[in-house]
Amino acid sequence: MSSATLCMLPLADLSARIRQRSLSPVELAEAHLARIEQFDDELHCYLTVTAERARSDARRAEEEIARGAWRGPLHGIPIALKDLFDTAGLRTTAGSRVLRERVPTRDAAVVERLAAAGAVLLGKLTLHEFAMGSPRLDDFFPPARNPWDLNRIPGGSSSGSAVALATGLCAGSLGSDTGGSIRHPAAHCAIVGLKPTYGLVSRRGATVLSWTLDHVGPMARTVEDAAIILQAIAGYDPADPASARAAIPDYRAALHGAISGVRIGVPRAYVEATPGLEPEVLAAFDAALEVLRQRGAEVRDVTLPMAEHAEAILLTILLSEAIAYHAPWLRARRHEYGQGFSVRLLPGLFFTAADYVQAQRGRRLLCRGMEELMTEVDLIATPTMPRTAPTFAEEAAASPIPRSPFTRLFNITGQPSISVPGGLGRHGLPVGLMLSGRAFDEPTVLRVAASYERATEWHCRVPPLLT
Amino acid sequence: MSSATLCMLPLADLSARIRQRSLSPVELAEAHLARIEQFDDELHCYLTVTAERARSDARRAEEEIARGAWRGPLHGIPIALKDLFDTAGLRTTAGSRVLRERVPTRDAAVVERLAAAGAVLLGKLTLHEFAMGSPRLDDFFPPARNPWDLNRIPGGSSSGSAVALATGLCAGSLGSDTGGSIRHPAAHCAIVGLKPTYGLVSRRGATVLSWTLDHVGPMARTVEDAAIILQAIAGYDPADPASARAAIPDYRAALHGAISGVRIGVPRAYVEATPGLEPEVLAAFDAALEVLRQRGAEVRDVTLPMAEHAEAILLTILLSEAIAYHAPWLRARRHEYGQGFSVRLLPGLFFTAADYVQAQRGRRLLCRGMEELMTEVDLIATPTMPRTAPTFAEEAAASPIPRSPFTRLFNITGQPSISVPGGLGRHGLPVGLMLSGRAFDEPTVLRVAASYERATEWHCRVPPLLT
Repeated sequence: MSSATLCMLPLADLSARIRQRSLSPVELAEAHLARIEQFDDELHCYLTVTAERARSDARRAEEEIARGAWRGPLHGIPIALKDLFDTAGLRTTAGSRVLRERVPTRDAAVVERLAAAGAVLLGKLTLHEFAMGSPRLDDFFPPARNPWDLNRIPGGSSSGSAVALATGLCAGSLGSDTGGSIRHPAAHCAIVGLKPTYGLVSRRGATVLSWTLDHVGPMARTVEDAAIILQAIAGYDPADPASARAAIPDYRAALHGAISGVRIGVPRAYVEATPGLEPEVLAAFDAALEVLRQRGAEVRDVTLPMAEHAEAILLTILLSEAIAYHAPWLRARRHEYGQGFSVRLLPGLFFTAADYVQAQRGRRLLCRGMEELMTEVDLIATPTMPRTAPTFAEEAAASPIPRSPFTRLFNITGQPSISVPGGLGRHGLPVGLMLSGRAFDEPTVLRVAASYERATEWHCRVPPLLT
Repeated sequence: MSSATLCMLPLADLSARIRQRSLSPVELAEAHLARIEQFDDELHCYLTVTAERARSDARRAEEEIARGAWRGPLHGIPIALKDLFDTAGLRTTAGSRVLRERVPTRDAAVVERLAAAGAVLLGKLTLHEFAMGSPRLDDFFPPARNPWDLNRIPGGSSSGSAVALATGLCAGSLGSDTGGSIRHPAAHCAIVGLKPTYGLVSRRGATVLSWTLDHVGPMARTVEDAAIILQAIAGYDPADPASARAAIPDYRAALHGAISGVRIGVPRAYVEATPGLEPEVLAAFDAALEVLRQRGAEVRDVTLPMAEHAEAILLTILLSEAIAYHAPWLRARRHEYGQGFSVRLLPGLFFTAADYVQAQRGRRLLCRGMEELMTEVDLIATPTMPRTAPTFAEEAAASPIPRSPFTRLFNITGQPSISVPGGLGRHGLPVGLMLSGRAFDEPTVLRVAASYERATEWHCRVPPLLT
């Protein structure tokens, strides 16, 4: 098998081969490191490549498995992390010049969990500055590029994670999602990104954007791979004040049921009225709904509660909390922030405490409405983004307010929400299908996403750059 | 029995007599109305006396009981309400000139519950303006006066409720408590005030001071009376977004157990370092602890987590939320607010969203610390207030920042907290003993408070004015 074919296999396939000892973790790590060497000068998805660490992790995994101490499906699997997860002794920058020399002394909770599962760390991945910047070609850290068209943004903020997965530069990754930062690049790069339920995955050691909106979750090439990673990272952690004492089901086992009778709500009026919605995105979305219908789901139109207030609610809460986090640096090191981040963050200085209180009150009402809606349907389906990936030039010319009308709803409510490859749109670029479920009902979200994936196999599409 | 003796009986006694039909609700209502007529010109605890409503409620109760349809221990009992609970068709002012002509169209949730329990409404009671003002003798609505010394404040903001109970102008009442507004006047007037667990009692139809700190609870002359009222008002209400789906135990049944082995934590270092703590208050508190020890409680010193930050946390949250609520009136009707309220509220205009976010983060840490502490003890005991009631002149000269270092802790955490009469201090004025428990563990709070009450019978002390 060629290195290219090997590195594009699903994590689950790699894992089966490693367990059967038909694939060496050391060989797999070397194949990835060579591929990073070959492609990353152009893709810019790695901020830091930890080649020696990867080799030593892989050797240890190989030895352990050779003596029968297989730890589970991540053992020997080469992964890479959005560079806002703390890694002890390794630079963790959050994509910002402000933290360019920061070296944490302790791993983030999720990094500890992946290490305990035997994963092999390839390195730290590019992101939009502090998980909110807008990428510009002259950024301090060069932005990752979309492998479907290098002149286009890959989406963000977990840009490097999506690009590395789409191009076989890692087998699994973690992202963070405050308004859509896992699902947005997943949609633009045709990979799978899951924002889990708020509180399911610990955020201890992940750089903060907004305490009440931040989520950590898996990014992968298939739904099954996302389930495998989620299994490793989910669970209560007293060090994250928002962490929930929830039972953790077997997510991989949940993939295999039928979806007949699953009730899927489509906020059609809201989707169709979204500014900038591309007709090709709507066509791909309707085709996806037809696939779900054919597999037995009950697809019906619904009305989203207070969706017209979601942007104001999210931005007020997000920017207020981000300002609270950044206040010390804003006083002393204002000039070190990139422009794409500054123009988004600084309006947060003007929010009063009363504005924030009103936004949280609105959020509560929206959540109540959504809870009621979720008694009538099991999932909400929308496109992940209203359009396919813009060029860097279009992104630089756009409004500084992120246009993510669908993703942000589920940061406000904390519901689980997945983006899976959902066809192609304008210019042959990927479109994402987003499915969002009830709190802690990741099993239903994953099962329906996996069913759609099996029917369509969009995830097998390799970006044209690499074919 | 004289009218004075009758009107000072515990609600539970009145209730037993009504049930046995040895006391007529109509006679009881008339006795109270006459007593209001006799004393309230001096005490100012009623803003509105609803004599006709009381008579008609009482007649209905009498008829129902006569035909065997006894509704429970509040049937035929004359109660009065802090004038921030909406009463359909009856003026509800929140003690403010701003709302002097406001007539709600629907009863507050707790008012509906008391009516369903058969209570007789005597009227609406004085409070500090919008539950936060500082009382001044020249206020638009004259302030209630402390029956132990008419030159002193009765404590607030539920001032009228405490005065009416202490003087036999009602048999039970409701207050609200955002930083201590039930327990503070309870301590200064030698009655019982219970701030229940956040979410246990609906706030729908109660004027807002601070959504995340406001609590509604019973005020009464005895712990048993408070338990009877709590039973009627506790329970889930979807119309209050903070309402909890908690099981409601039999609170009155919980009063009768022994307290041996109950672990009571005393934050002695914090109490003794409190600015303005009167030695007589500390002496009364120590005597109260000795009573609890003699009854078998394990009393031990503890350290309160982050108590030194509680004032900043509470004021930032409270004023920010209050500003959000008052914003429309502040623009148009600023001059109608009283000075005692304005000087407290207006600093809230200067809080930024980031300040509020940091305060809520501090609150979370404080709550976590308190949860840990509450695994080591069952209750926290402190004095309710560090001093006895000041004169109106002293109050007017004091800092506009309320000095309630003990009560506010449990608004921040949402834990149940009761003030019971705990002896006499300087000038022979009442001192309160405060006992605070774990969330939703009102039974333990009530049981220990009742045990202390049985041992001391402070509650039988009638203010000198009336003897």
